[in-house]
Amino acid sequence: MRGQIMIKVGIVGGTGYTGIELLRLLSAHPEVQLTTITSRKEDGMAVSEMFPSLRGRVDLVFSTPEKAGLTDCDVVFFATPHGVAMAQARELLAANVKIIDLAADFRLKDTSEFEKWYGMPHSCPDILAEAVYGLVEVNRDAIRKARVIGLPGCYPTSMQLGYAPLLTQGKPLVNESALIADCKSGTSGAGRKAEIATLLAETSDNFHAYGVRGHRHLPETVQGLKALTGNQRDIGLTFVPHLTPMIRGIHSTLYATILPEARSTDFQALYENHYRNDPFVDVMPAGSHPETRSVRASNFLRIAVHRPAGGDQLVILVVEDNLVKGAAGQGVQCMNLMFGLDETTGLMLTPVVP
Amino acid sequence: MRGQIMIKVGIVGGTGYTGIELLRLLSAHPEVQLTTITSRKEDGMAVSEMFPSLRGRVDLVFSTPEKAGLTDCDVVFFATPHGVAMAQARELLAANVKIIDLAADFRLKDTSEFEKWYGMPHSCPDILAEAVYGLVEVNRDAIRKARVIGLPGCYPTSMQLGYAPLLTQGKPLVNESALIADCKSGTSGAGRKAEIATLLAETSDNFHAYGVRGHRHLPETVQGLKALTGNQRDIGLTFVPHLTPMIRGIHSTLYATILPEARSTDFQALYENHYRNDPFVDVMPAGSHPETRSVRASNFLRIAVHRPAGGDQLVILVVEDNLVKGAAGQGVQCMNLMFGLDETTGLMLTPVVP
Amino acid sequence: MRGQIMIKVGIVGGTGYTGIELLRLLSAHPEVQLTTITSRKEDGMAVSEMFPSLRGRVDLVFSTPEKAGLTDCDVVFFATPHGVAMAQARELLAANVKIIDLAADFRLKDTSEFEKWYGMPHSCPDILAEAVYGLVEVNRDAIRKARVIGLPGCYPTSMQLGYAPLLTQGKPLVNESALIADCKSGTSGAGRKAEIATLLAETSDNFHAYGVRGHRHLPETVQGLKALTGNQRDIGLTFVPHLTPMIRGIHSTLYATILPEARSTDFQALYENHYRNDPFVDVMPAGSHPETRSVRASNFLRIAVHRPAGGDQLVILVVEDNLVKGAAGQGVQCMNLMFGLDETTGLMLTPVVP
Amino acid sequence: MRGQIMIKVGIVGGTGYTGIELLRLLSAHPEVQLTTITSRKEDGMAVSEMFPSLRGRVDLVFSTPEKAGLTDCDVVFFATPHGVAMAQARELLAANVKIIDLAADFRLKDTSEFEKWYGMPHSCPDILAEAVYGLVEVNRDAIRKARVIGLPGCYPTSMQLGYAPLLTQGKPLVNESALIADCKSGTSGAGRKAEIATLLAETSDNFHAYGVRGHRHLPETVQGLKALTGNQRDIGLTFVPHLTPMIRGIHSTLYATILPEARSTDFQALYENHYRNDPFVDVMPAGSHPETRSVRASNFLRIAVHRPAGGDQLVILVVEDNLVKGAAGQGVQCMNLMFGLDETTGLMLTPVVP
Repeated sequence: MRGQIMIKVGIVGGTGYTGIELLRLLSAHPEVQLTTITSRKEDGMAVSEMFPSLRGRVDLVFSTPEKAGLTDCDVVFFATPHGVAMAQARELLAANVKIIDLAADFRLKDTSEFEKWYGMPHSCPDILAEAVYGLVEVNRDAIRKARVIGLPGCYPTSMQLGYAPLLTQGKPLVNESALIADCKSGTSGAGRKAEIATLLAETSDNFHAYGVRGHRHLPETVQGLKALTGNQRDIGLTFVPHLTPMIRGIHSTLYATILPEARSTDFQALYENHYRNDPFVDVMPAGSHPETRSVRASNFLRIAVHRPAGGDQLVILVVEDNLVKGAAGQGVQCMNLMFGLDETTGLMLTPVVP
Repeated sequence: MRGQIMIKVGIVGGTGYTGIELLRLLSAHPEVQLTTITSRKEDGMAVSEMFPSLRGRVDLVFSTPEKAGLTDCDVVFFATPHGVAMAQARELLAANVKIIDLAADFRLKDTSEFEKWYGMPHSCPDILAEAVYGLVEVNRDAIRKARVIGLPGCYPTSMQLGYAPLLTQGKPLVNESALIADCKSGTSGAGRKAEIATLLAETSDNFHAYGVRGHRHLPETVQGLKALTGNQRDIGLTFVPHLTPMIRGIHSTLYATILPEARSTDFQALYENHYRNDPFVDVMPAGSHPETRSVRASNFLRIAVHRPAGGDQLVILVVEDNLVKGAAGQGVQCMNLMFGLDETTGLMLTPVVP
Repeated sequence: MRGQIMIKVGIVGGTGYTGIELLRLLSAHPEVQLTTITSRKEDGMAVSEMFPSLRGRVDLVFSTPEKAGLTDCDVVFFATPHGVAMAQARELLAANVKIIDLAADFRLKDTSEFEKWYGMPHSCPDILAEAVYGLVEVNRDAIRKARVIGLPGCYPTSMQLGYAPLLTQGKPLVNESALIADCKSGTSGAGRKAEIATLLAETSDNFHAYGVRGHRHLPETVQGLKALTGNQRDIGLTFVPHLTPMIRGIHSTLYATILPEARSTDFQALYENHYRNDPFVDVMPAGSHPETRSVRASNFLRIAVHRPAGGDQLVILVVEDNLVKGAAGQGVQCMNLMFGLDETTGLMLTPVVP
Repeated sequence: MRGQIMIKVGIVGGTGYTGIELLRLLSAHPEVQLTTITSRKEDGMAVSEMFPSLRGRVDLVFSTPEKAGLTDCDVVFFATPHGVAMAQARELLAANVKIIDLAADFRLKDTSEFEKWYGMPHSCPDILAEAVYGLVEVNRDAIRKARVIGLPGCYPTSMQLGYAPLLTQGKPLVNESALIADCKSGTSGAGRKAEIATLLAETSDNFHAYGVRGHRHLPETVQGLKALTGNQRDIGLTFVPHLTPMIRGIHSTLYATILPEARSTDFQALYENHYRNDPFVDVMPAGSHPETRSVRASNFLRIAVHRPAGGDQLVILVVEDNLVKGAAGQGVQCMNLMFGLDETTGLMLTPVVP
């Protein structure tokens, strides 16, 4: 127990799905004092009026950024559209406030890539340069010392953790130039936005791919996968996202062709060993088919490794809750490390089944 | 803090939906030691093998009742088909073990009613006589002293708590002989049973009533509603349950005709006042429309009171999670009281939205 | 067979759910030539580009109203927001074009009621006066001769057809001043509009009431119910609509208290007799629980009559597809009558189950 | 038009999802007389009692096979578990009755493969030898003359039609030894069976793979893909099926690596040209993302061809309704050909959206 000293947390833009998930997690976190939350549009409205599920659990009232006192916080989470965090980062850092951005402002290290995929110039390349990519299982030590975290996207989290045990070896085990990631997401991944495409009447009893020509999570994932090789080897990735008629959950089905020299590898052991010290990554027994609901509303991510008919095609199944391990939960996991807490503090929520 | 002394809890029949919900709640309860769980069919199987969502959270292994050591527990929950608890109750009570039955064995005080609706004779009327109906907001004091709890059904919980502020007045406020409860439940209420009727392909994108001619929760609710009047007045209730294409949640839309002499009543104030000290019952502001998801995976129950056009028809909207406040959560709430804990211990889980 | 002479049909505003449903039905109608469809916003876009389900089935291209040649049609359907049909009605009637409005412009006979509920003045009370309410089973003869049809709303269709056999008797059988309609609708009833409230992530695994204080379908239904009594008796109706996590379907659970003098009525026979000549209304056997999917994508409406425990409370269960019998299908049914065709022409589609 | 002579059709085993879908399609078929339907268990029950959606549309009564008079039919559909059709085939053929089997009895040409995957010996290898695989777009001419049809499985239909334009070329265009098919199916594909795994409470808001180690549709598909090469080239296929929380629909995402010598191929043109005469296969414009609902309740199958970033990885998206083109509809398509009708007779149903 840390005694009286609670982490003062501010949230910028708490009206979306990652925002309400942050509120759910942080309001129950034993070391956090939820201090302020901003929404220009909802200034003066109680959070629990917008989200009745938080009645009796969260007493905050939305306020404009000007009134919010963000610089008095220890850490500020940005659950905002892309571009907001980088506009406010310099002032917060100057006030000694740490930053955890759930949007994309601090993900792509190459600003020209950022500009290409997000359609806006990057306003603070120097802060981007010091920002740490918040994928805990890969960057744990750097996150501990970070002032600015660019949290991974939901799809990239599942792909990188699914491929990590393969790519972090000294020599390639699989054909790294022809990886295929067939990913399926629930519709909360599209955000709490007024759009026809994600209406229940459009997406229920329906399934389709999207963004096959190109998706913002592709360059982020390729950057991350390459980093897993120590930036020593190039990565070729085909990424096909699909929209699934469910609220939460990502299921990534990852394919990799085993190289002839790696045919004798015990991939199950490789994965189990790689993640033996990661409390939120669960390598399931051989032959398992993880279900997205097995991690619902929790920070766990489960992996199963298959090699059909003992052939050269490796099939890795990865499930996560896109709003928890794929967003808010991973953010809290980073915060725990940044403030010297156990990584799991406030995060050991049991998945909700059924 | 109670220090080292944890409540030793056994679960009989933990393979259904109320069973896994008990496991989710009890495994995170700070004062509980999950001690044993029985399933004759799954003897020797790890609980987390059946429910991978509990991997890393619950280490129990199913065992047969004979091996389970139930008599060493402080309390045993029955998450079983009707008839199991009453067969084992006497032995457990003799061993000084408290009993919380999630099935119907200890709900109906009239054994002939029990036999009529459940198709089996009642094997221990004496224990039934001492059993307390586990509706905390109505029977809190009796529950504290109880050895045996018959937990309310999911529908009856919502109906009784929805009507309670009206019926507990000295004089009738509404026409108590013509109450109408139009209730809607998610399919988890039908249990984790191999049945065609609750397949996704049957129930998704579909809606229908069932049991209009008679449902087991009708006599239980009438008994409870009458008790709310101090057994002074008769109750006439039309109860129409409906199956809704969702997993969790009950929405009860309750109708009552205001008596002429009660037209000046402030029903909003009546409800707010009635529940002002109940931590899990939330009377929402006038004009609200509670959503089932606003209580999802939590023990809260929310109520809104409407009087359309200021007329004589009262419309009370009640939402609960059928597996939590309607079953496992209410069981834990009872357990807390029976063991001198704060009623909310281990139960202040924030609802999961979206 | 009418030989070569096909009905030339125009559609104004075909980009919503009732619009695409009209296209599905009319494109397969043996006596219809789909002639033109308007959408100012989508001018020049092929209908099948917006709705790929119509590829190879509908060759129309959206055009602006100016270019659409609506006055060359025999009949024009308005699948538009409220207020559009009345703005164009006079010109079309002058050109001898019949009008079927799926919006509310010609539903409410009292223009002050229209203005109160729809927030706009009525621009053509004279046309409203001649318009016929398109509830075929009630107004069949008038519809045959009509030039302008105001099609019933989805909820009102189910409520009126559910209560009609009771209210059309010379003497009241039930307490007509205290009817209760507890109705549940799929989310397509909210239309194809960009709104947060009907996103899958908001409405799936969720259930709630709405509009309890007042809903536009209440005055329309009361007007219709009163008309069923020959405008001889007043109606009191409590109407509570609910949003259900499904695409299509309305389930109305209707309550009525049997008057003492009507206790000996055979309600099952009353209903069967009332609808014996209506091809789209199916009175199911006593004890049935109709499912919304049993009418999915079809023009059928099914009714079951219950009298629980033989008491004084009548429970009538009604299901319809809100986009077919509750909108587009009923429109085609009216069109068939207006052009001397058999009422069922092009409408005998078998419901889609599962 | 064939005048008075209707095709007399019998159905064996009409109580599952492919059975009711056959009933929906055949009851509206202009050249079919539904003559008899068997179900030993439901003998004497009206079909419309089991499936109220067919009230007023289908008048048949289930009867035992003995009483059913199957040998008086022109054609018999088997919508039964595997093994039933082959037990009755010889007698029917002797009576000059054609057979269309929706199960697997006549799919796998290699009886040892059949026995391995279906766990039973094949009882009539001679009939198997003459049976034609009912994939119309591949075997149209053979189907016209066939007496026995083994209808493709739902997944194999989508995979074979998705790969056919590539594999039917004289020289390989893609690496045919490393094809990957990532397929997603609605739960109706699992059949109308009492099973926990496909309950709504298990499968809704959930997504998972299954059968990664091996699935019966793998050998069938490999046999078919090889046949597409004229049995000249070997096929290596990794097939990963997934269960999606929807009722109907299969989405197959197919991957193939373009060979260096085929890099200049115009794959869009190749696909469009290949299917230019197939009324039920729709090659969508380049860049499309077909949705499963765009074929819901119809016999259409839509394909889109992608080559992300112009690289060597081809991504083919295929959607079908698993109960129509993947089962009953394809059966009717075969029947039409076998009886000299236009292939589309009774099958041009417009998909149901939303």
